[in-house]
Amino acid sequence: MQVPMHLSRIIISEINEQQFIYLREVDGDREFPIVIGIFEATSIDRRVKNFESPRPLTHDLLVNTVEQLGAELDSVHIHELRETTYYAKLRIKLDGEFIDVDARPSDAIAVAVTCKPRLPIFVSEEVLDEAIS
Amino acid sequence: MQVPMHLSRIIISEINEQQFIYLREVDGDREFPIVIGIFEATSIDRRVKNFESPRPLTHDLLVNTVEQLGAELDSVHIHELRETTYYAKLRIKLDGEFIDVDARPSDAIAVAVTCKPRLPIFVSEEVLDEAIS
Repeated sequence: MQVPMHLSRIIISEINEQQFIYLREVDGDREFPIVIGIFEATSIDRRVKNFESPRPLTHDLLVNTVEQLGAELDSVHIHELRETTYYAKLRIKLDGEFIDVDARPSDAIAVAVTCKPRLPIFVSEEVLDEAIS
Repeated sequence: MQVPMHLSRIIISEINEQQFIYLREVDGDREFPIVIGIFEATSIDRRVKNFESPRPLTHDLLVNTVEQLGAELDSVHIHELRETTYYAKLRIKLDGEFIDVDARPSDAIAVAVTCKPRLPIFVSEEVLDEAIS
């Protein structure tokens, strides 16, 4: 089963390499952190705060490219947790079919918050169970 | 006219915000620097040095997405210089037609060096004239 989640917190520390984002259940209280890099954390944070950039940043470029190729960004799926690494997919709709592109959760979530409206984020029940255990 | 250029140098300074990449004429001696951010400079540097990452990094995700959508990355064009800002296009081939996506030169060049083989980089003669003047 796929559990709808939303980005609930971003914790950026300038003295640490590792940054944290938290995903929280849309219809419940379960929440877990994902460790990401400073670039992706900053990229997510800027978008959540609606900072406008005069030029397209990297995740804007990705979103614009998908749109100009006639495809549509659909959703983000975090489907696996293997040895402390989360695996995500960026789901894209092209000609009525879904295409899943392998991504780090940080990039997938940065894309999710770049899109207007934001893309829904799903975490598989097994990953959620493991993440909060 | 479009002048073929190649990435000749990457200068990363950890004490400065601004990093430099240099583009040099393939069939000549003209060379000029472009100021870019640390993330993009690091991303370009890793690829030039063939560092392998266990998971797709942001520019890998962009390249993989284009390929999975059935399109082909073709080339990078730096076509304008306006008040010290360079403007680039990422040219993509889809169903026999070219689509140009507006990009920062740093992202476009990071994509160029992520592709195997690398994408050709072109700078318009007017931009080159202005850049080296």
